[in-house]
Amino acid sequence: MAAASAGQLGSLGSLGRQQAAARASPTPRTGWHICGRRGGCGAGGRRRCGALMEPLAVPEEEMPLTAAPGPTGCQLFGYVGIEAVLDQMKIKTMKTGFEFNIMVVGQSGLGKSTMVNTLFKSKVSRKASQPSQEERIPKTVQLQSITHVIEEKGVKMKLTVTDTPGFGDQINNENCWDPIIKYINEQYERYLREEILITRKRKIPDTRVHGCVYFVPPTGHWLRPLDLEFMRRLSKIVNVVPVIAKADTLTLEERAEFKQRIQEDLKTHAISVYPQEDFDQDPDDRVRNDRIREKIPFAVVGADQEHQVNGKRVLGRKTKWGIIEVENPAHCEFPLLRDLLIRSHLQDLKDITHNVHYESYRVRRLNESNGPALTAASPPELPLDPCGSARPLPTLVAVPGPCLG
Amino acid sequence: MAAASAGQLGSLGSLGRQQAAARASPTPRTGWHICGRRGGCGAGGRRRCGALMEPLAVPEEEMPLTAAPGPTGCQLFGYVGIEAVLDQMKIKTMKTGFEFNIMVVGQSGLGKSTMVNTLFKSKVSRKASQPSQEERIPKTVQLQSITHVIEEKGVKMKLTVTDTPGFGDQINNENCWDPIIKYINEQYERYLREEILITRKRKIPDTRVHGCVYFVPPTGHWLRPLDLEFMRRLSKIVNVVPVIAKADTLTLEERAEFKQRIQEDLKTHAISVYPQEDFDQDPDDRVRNDRIREKIPFAVVGADQEHQVNGKRVLGRKTKWGIIEVENPAHCEFPLLRDLLIRSHLQDLKDITHNVHYESYRVRRLNESNGPALTAASPPELPLDPCGSARPLPTLVAVPGPCLG
Repeated sequence: MAAASAGQLGSLGSLGRQQAAARASPTPRTGWHICGRRGGCGAGGRRRCGALMEPLAVPEEEMPLTAAPGPTGCQLFGYVGIEAVLDQMKIKTMKTGFEFNIMVVGQSGLGKSTMVNTLFKSKVSRKASQPSQEERIPKTVQLQSITHVIEEKGVKMKLTVTDTPGFGDQINNENCWDPIIKYINEQYERYLREEILITRKRKIPDTRVHGCVYFVPPTGHWLRPLDLEFMRRLSKIVNVVPVIAKADTLTLEERAEFKQRIQEDLKTHAISVYPQEDFDQDPDDRVRNDRIREKIPFAVVGADQEHQVNGKRVLGRKTKWGIIEVENPAHCEFPLLRDLLIRSHLQDLKDITHNVHYESYRVRRLNESNGPALTAASPPELPLDPCGSARPLPTLVAVPGPCLG
Repeated sequence: MAAASAGQLGSLGSLGRQQAAARASPTPRTGWHICGRRGGCGAGGRRRCGALMEPLAVPEEEMPLTAAPGPTGCQLFGYVGIEAVLDQMKIKTMKTGFEFNIMVVGQSGLGKSTMVNTLFKSKVSRKASQPSQEERIPKTVQLQSITHVIEEKGVKMKLTVTDTPGFGDQINNENCWDPIIKYINEQYERYLREEILITRKRKIPDTRVHGCVYFVPPTGHWLRPLDLEFMRRLSKIVNVVPVIAKADTLTLEERAEFKQRIQEDLKTHAISVYPQEDFDQDPDDRVRNDRIREKIPFAVVGADQEHQVNGKRVLGRKTKWGIIEVENPAHCEFPLLRDLLIRSHLQDLKDITHNVHYESYRVRRLNESNGPALTAASPPELPLDPCGSARPLPTLVAVPGPCLG
């Protein structure tokens, strides 16, 4: 790296007004200053200074530039190596691995298991090839989680897939979302109870559901009341990613029309599926996510059979009239779903779960109890009550202690 | 990426014993399985399966390989893209930036400010070029924090440097570590109070001190009682990195001898400076950190002047008998200090601070009060008491709620 001239360095000896203010102060003070090798706060560069913890008497923004006693001198005059932190984080992630938990919901026969296996290119979800008579349709929604560690290029992902057989398969499907909501909340509860322990694990095990893929049957009509009710409730507590299942049963025109109707339905019912507009963090995010939102729900096809197409092996479904290639963007939108869940938004799904959904749950839990404090020393894995609704658990109280007066 | 043959894929349809067990279960179950493109659990590969949350009736380790109904089929049969998470994390860090807080302690005239400026190649620390008579030696230890945002290769670091003028400069230096300990604990308190708020910030501002560089005067003798007392107390609450200041006053032999004596002193007094042996996470860490521990404390020289050496500009100190190049490993160990603090261990300093020192503080705080609950709704920035000792603050109580019986 080229270094600045000695002349520039000489100017570093002069003391900025901010530093002078800090030095004259008898109590700890903090100001801040943007420095950079280029575009820093040297002569001709932009200046942005302001109070951070305790405001200085005169915030530097309000000072005319000429009032400063010369360049304040925080241009970098050599290579520091700050960006090495990216590699340090990478090494740490490769060492420890990470957790990713996904849930699939939809009535039986929509290809949920095949889709998960297609996404993760492995047998990560059970597939009932020949279920017995009793197994065929469970009488209630039964949640089944299987965890696999998938390793690729040295990165280990602990993937948990939670399946929900029985959902939407009954004559009366009232409240069939309850066991699902209960499961999702139980994972938040589990995390919360670990978080408030006095002696905590170095890393709290994360079983929270980061994404819930909801399979809409390819009717080509509208969303059914069950679809709407489920997504309305679930989108408030988890990242819901709706997909049009078995999209090979629809022509391209039917798909486009169905998709548009679903988008209208979601809008009409104020259902905010992932990626939620409210959580876009900056204009870049907005543009990128708008492009995704236009295409939601993705019309997908899953397959775990390979076929020969133009000399290449492709995953697809072979019919008499041709091979539907799942990874071919012209055939279906599986690649969009895979990119969203894994290649572009996996970390964001985890972040939204932690920063938004879990925080909402935590606020709700801590607010709902005006009683005794959430027990910091209670075991983290309390048996949760079987009725499916959250118990009025003890919570942090907002009573000021004796020393706060 | 090459994909597996259709024959291999066909076997994915068969149901592993684990999945069968999961399906038969009426309650949510979770098992886990290591999968990988190579060395997975297919025929001939290694197998590692075991219970994660709820153990399955028969852990797969105990099953003879031949008992499985064919390969259990979790070899990846194509590219998934898991490692894309590394890029997602990188992009997120580049967008949000990160905080790094460092403290320098040592008596006046040991080059603390120059060293910080040398480390970060900028004027990040105030340097009293011409202090007035009163400013020369403060009568008490006064903490001064200055925060700069340093940007390099698109990575933004919010660096806070806390200086401690007055430390060790009095006739009687008893308890001169108190304001420093108070400051460090105040930052933990600040973080704790944010963490337990019901409605929390998405990212808790981190003002905790990630590293405390202690400047040992280059006496060439032993550690003084003040050095020992300070490091003994501080190493329990913060990452202490001792350095031999102004090492250009010592010959290489004197340095080596002094360093060895300091190492013996630290050992005798059971002072565990950073990187602490106890916190090595794996054999790799151990080997890497042992190499660092051999060389601690680094004998350093700081400089913020450039000189011409063999046609190259180098940071150094020019004397009549030659130029001491601070970045030349043959001249001093500044490069080792820079690598430790920035290029190799910055993230680890932050992690140890969060996972060990902050957690210890939190456990202490939550345990020390048997009284009312730590107020989740109290303002995070309470004025801290001026006496320098931690107040007996209200804390989380370990009283079980009414529903836990």
